[in-house]
Amino acid sequence: MTTSFPSSFDDCVARDRDDPLAERRDLFALPDGLLYLDGHSLGPATHKALARLEQAAKDEWAQGLIRSWNDAGWIDLARDTGARIARLIGAGPDEVLVCDSVSTNLFKLAAAARDLSASPTLIIEEDEFPTDQYIAEGLAQLTKSNLLRVRPDEGLQRLAETGGILIRSAVNYRTAAVADMKEAEKVADLSGGVIVWDLSHATGVLALDMSIARLAAGCTYKYLNGGPGAPAFIYVRQDVANRITSPLPGWMGHKSPFNFASHYEPADGVARFANGTPPILSLSALAAALDAFEGITPAELEAKARALGDFCLSLAEKIGLQSSSPAISTRRGGHVTLHHENGYAIIQALIARGIIGDFRSPDAMRFGFSPLYTGFADVWRAMDALGDVLKTGEWDSPTFLARAKVT
Amino acid sequence: MTTSFPSSFDDCVARDRDDPLAERRDLFALPDGLLYLDGHSLGPATHKALARLEQAAKDEWAQGLIRSWNDAGWIDLARDTGARIARLIGAGPDEVLVCDSVSTNLFKLAAAARDLSASPTLIIEEDEFPTDQYIAEGLAQLTKSNLLRVRPDEGLQRLAETGGILIRSAVNYRTAAVADMKEAEKVADLSGGVIVWDLSHATGVLALDMSIARLAAGCTYKYLNGGPGAPAFIYVRQDVANRITSPLPGWMGHKSPFNFASHYEPADGVARFANGTPPILSLSALAAALDAFEGITPAELEAKARALGDFCLSLAEKIGLQSSSPAISTRRGGHVTLHHENGYAIIQALIARGIIGDFRSPDAMRFGFSPLYTGFADVWRAMDALGDVLKTGEWDSPTFLARAKVT
Repeated sequence: MTTSFPSSFDDCVARDRDDPLAERRDLFALPDGLLYLDGHSLGPATHKALARLEQAAKDEWAQGLIRSWNDAGWIDLARDTGARIARLIGAGPDEVLVCDSVSTNLFKLAAAARDLSASPTLIIEEDEFPTDQYIAEGLAQLTKSNLLRVRPDEGLQRLAETGGILIRSAVNYRTAAVADMKEAEKVADLSGGVIVWDLSHATGVLALDMSIARLAAGCTYKYLNGGPGAPAFIYVRQDVANRITSPLPGWMGHKSPFNFASHYEPADGVARFANGTPPILSLSALAAALDAFEGITPAELEAKARALGDFCLSLAEKIGLQSSSPAISTRRGGHVTLHHENGYAIIQALIARGIIGDFRSPDAMRFGFSPLYTGFADVWRAMDALGDVLKTGEWDSPTFLARAKVT
Repeated sequence: MTTSFPSSFDDCVARDRDDPLAERRDLFALPDGLLYLDGHSLGPATHKALARLEQAAKDEWAQGLIRSWNDAGWIDLARDTGARIARLIGAGPDEVLVCDSVSTNLFKLAAAARDLSASPTLIIEEDEFPTDQYIAEGLAQLTKSNLLRVRPDEGLQRLAETGGILIRSAVNYRTAAVADMKEAEKVADLSGGVIVWDLSHATGVLALDMSIARLAAGCTYKYLNGGPGAPAFIYVRQDVANRITSPLPGWMGHKSPFNFASHYEPADGVARFANGTPPILSLSALAAALDAFEGITPAELEAKARALGDFCLSLAEKIGLQSSSPAISTRRGGHVTLHHENGYAIIQALIARGIIGDFRSPDAMRFGFSPLYTGFADVWRAMDALGDVLKTGEWDSPTFLARAKVT
């Protein structure tokens, strides 16, 4: 991929034609005429995910019933799916498991980290995704531990001082700023502290190398396209997995769950972080959604996402919009955040034009560039329409100003 | 329903013909020729659940995408579905929420109960479902609380002594023995203790009155037929809900999740026990599965389940099998447990004959009688086949003796 930007819509089309990832778009069941730039929030369905879900429901559940735990491999599905996610985050196949929600997994990891860290003090920066902050609050309260809520970018300093447990996003949900994981892990090592990484906005769009980190959780319904509320994943590096335990030792994390033993004996490795019975239908859709990543390296995904983001920022500048996303692509995740005091209504006006981005209070408009189904022409069209919406002022209507429940 | 038992297969058929619930069987997508008596483990699919799941996937996810949080009502689905489950357990519509797994919900409640109980001591009987025991263990370890593992039926005594927190099944997963909830709650009240009820094997088959209890969690993929691993529910009585908080305050339990505030402010009532994003596909199937209960009272479900269980026990006695399930139907849940040292192979031999029950180590054969799709003729056929399998000794073959992963 070259670093010069396309200078016209036709240029964009030509660039997309040369993109080896472009054909992946056909794998997706995207609505006709819709330009979807919200894959950082909810990824779209692939044809395979829809077909697999139907199979899981009609064949495995309705026909196979209880037998499908063995016959359809339900019992191994969380581990098998975890192993496939592992490749996408630069982890070993035995280090990732699909289970619970990101919130629950962060809780499990931050609690388990107490057996690894020099101090039980919890640290969270105030611009982290809310759930990460609330979970830190909940765990601190339950365990009567100290919780340091610190200003953005103060987390590492406080980690160095305390040797505590820092919950940190690899990619900030608002700005898409990327954390320097290597530097952060060095601070953790030196201080005796531990970092619990939230990979939600990084997975499927960055070339991560999780071998440098010990603990992480992440979302599967964003760039992995696992479906609404698809179960999350948990990563625990092999060398620490057997030294820690889950505070939520549901029976699926037992060494021999079907022995129905009274005492908990944790399974080996990350499998001990399994909890209750996973939602098989949602998990089946996720498993099939991962097929869209077969044969692609995380480096290819990252390179394309960066190119699209750079292009978006260059066009946004031309229409006079400020961005809080890093200009340097190596410091940015898969989305770009632009600001306008009427951002909510502007996003609504764009949706009315068939272009979907999203809004985060008070003034942030986010546009996500999933490398699997987004191209240069899409970026052009979106920014062209955005410029037009600003010029016409069409966002200034009661329809677009009326807020929905979910924004 | 009369108390005399049918004396022939034809008698059974006649009895089923008079059963007002018999027509509900047509709502289920049961495989032809299969007799399914494992609804206490995984309920079968209804036609509506399958159709709703397809709609959720193909229309709401694939076509509606992120817009479906508002347009398809995803954002309210966990509460709306909880309100419908509430009717089935004798709770108010604002007292039940669908979220997480039973394991996670038991953890949340047992942790939250510390703000209600005289003592943080946890109490669990040794014949409880393993996950209940492990979760008690995990919470005790995390909070450095005392955990009393006590013999079956000692729980109330220890609750009385300590004023602690007892995790207790309303129906024992192994024997189907029913707890005397009224008596237990009296002990809790007198001692200042709290009981966290596990309603997993009771919901959808017993006429519960949860107004006498404060906290409970339960499973939706057994008698509620929500689908494999369908999200669980949590019950918190209105008068205590705002006095306690969840140790897992995921962003969905915030008063205003879409304000993305840094500090956690719990939603009102049971809604504060929401956690991360719920698995919408699995949740949609569950929501539709509940349609099968419309127009039926829990008392009707209970009466039929008891009659079928009584009938099963009477037939089992004739073929010389012992049961650990209470003979008195008011003390028994929806399944019957019979014992045989070769129980595993016998269950496999029955499955080969198209009759599905399940096995619990070391010698328990469980047969579940979901009142929505099981009749007297089914019980007759199952016990007739079981007698035959014992007589022929056909279970004694390598095929049936070889153990599967899930038993």
